[in-house]
Amino acid sequence: MILVKAGGGRDVAWDAIGRDLASFNGSETFIVVHGASVLRDEIAARLSIPVRTVVSPSGVPSVYTDDEAMEVFLMAYAGVANKTIVAALHKHGLNAVGLTGVDGRLWEARAKKDLLIRENGKTLLLRDNRTGRVERSNAHLVRLLTGHGYLPVICAPAISGEHDIVNTDNDWAAAVMAADLGIREIVYLFEAPGFLRDPEKPETLIPRIDRSRIEEHMAFAAGRMKKKLLGAKKALESGVSAVYFGDGRIEKPVRSALEGKGTVIS
Amino acid sequence: MILVKAGGGRDVAWDAIGRDLASFNGSETFIVVHGASVLRDEIAARLSIPVRTVVSPSGVPSVYTDDEAMEVFLMAYAGVANKTIVAALHKHGLNAVGLTGVDGRLWEARAKKDLLIRENGKTLLLRDNRTGRVERSNAHLVRLLTGHGYLPVICAPAISGEHDIVNTDNDWAAAVMAADLGIREIVYLFEAPGFLRDPEKPETLIPRIDRSRIEEHMAFAAGRMKKKLLGAKKALESGVSAVYFGDGRIEKPVRSALEGKGTVIS
Repeated sequence: MILVKAGGGRDVAWDAIGRDLASFNGSETFIVVHGASVLRDEIAARLSIPVRTVVSPSGVPSVYTDDEAMEVFLMAYAGVANKTIVAALHKHGLNAVGLTGVDGRLWEARAKKDLLIRENGKTLLLRDNRTGRVERSNAHLVRLLTGHGYLPVICAPAISGEHDIVNTDNDWAAAVMAADLGIREIVYLFEAPGFLRDPEKPETLIPRIDRSRIEEHMAFAAGRMKKKLLGAKKALESGVSAVYFGDGRIEKPVRSALEGKGTVIS
Repeated sequence: MILVKAGGGRDVAWDAIGRDLASFNGSETFIVVHGASVLRDEIAARLSIPVRTVVSPSGVPSVYTDDEAMEVFLMAYAGVANKTIVAALHKHGLNAVGLTGVDGRLWEARAKKDLLIRENGKTLLLRDNRTGRVERSNAHLVRLLTGHGYLPVICAPAISGEHDIVNTDNDWAAAVMAADLGIREIVYLFEAPGFLRDPEKPETLIPRIDRSRIEEHMAFAAGRMKKKLLGAKKALESGVSAVYFGDGRIEKPVRSALEGKGTVIS
């Protein structure tokens, strides 16, 4: 089983991903996890609800999620993005079923209402944040679907132990799910050729990162790329043998990444 | 198996529905279908996208769905409503899984791009309507989930044979699904005690309608109630033995309806 995690950028080519996955003709089992951050930001802007990005004391960015922000999150992720992706995959004969982490408690998270952030050189405490960290996944539901020919297409949010809907880090959740399902390979697709030393320069692509040296590369990781590296680290610690970073804007994005044309972390 | 179809009004008590369904302790298998029309209208208003309700030449209202309206529809139904309901049911220990008709081609519809409407005494043709009528359902996916202890929570939209996302009539789709699944009983819950001769007067509740006399009652049916009656008629023609209309705002809404405290159509 291979987990394909695609980012929420506008240029991620779902049509090419669908064609690529369909070309395996069932010889490999896939599950798909996706983001929708760009769409979320657009809907928030249209509704005049500002998206508040905060940075943890260790420099990892995340979005502060109050009730209003959660509503926008559901509109973008569970609503428009998930169903549009599911329909796009059906065009290629893939029997996609869209789910969030809430459905069947697919992603069960520990709620983390208090959030330490770093702002203007100070450490502050934010309360009533509707977020959590995924601690376990419902492997039964995923296997039930894949075992009967369905392709699960999964996105945040997650559900807390208190049955509340909570925003969560997709990349971390993917790593937890990979561990619970015994997944050996994860493919991350985004709007870049792979992990770049300088995010502005495609020619600075780093083709290979040894798992023991992920921490050193955190220094080059800008913004959301930090989360992907953390997710990759967590996945490798949990039994995944290789994480592939690849370009989600090209034809055959999954095969290209698996062939090592992006960045291989193992 | 009993299909519970709850309307999209603000006062439908999902907490009470969850408590009621949980009280069956698995002695009965349920599937849930829900609307979200009020939420859809609210989001459309916030985004300044007018909802255009049109009326067919035979007097049945529906919403004209262009691309923009479809996006709002997905935000409300698949996004906010479906996931909020799923989480509410989990609070009662029900292992709810939210799906739209797009997922696994659960509701497969014949696209109907051209729409005849009646407006200002004239019959007009509207084109490029993203709607369709559900013709078959994926009974396999529903049985796979219910057979393993999951509670499917289903809403529109549907998917067309050309893999496009299309808006569809929930009540008709519920009837098609009931036929495909061999469901014997359907419970409709909404913001009224049952089918009323005068929608403004609860005391005009009609406790029983014989299946042969549904047409006569269409004359009293206002607005969306026409669709529910048409859905009930279709369901009874497809093998359902009884359709129950009941109050979705009270405690034990499902049991009360099944006990005949609303309107029984059989």
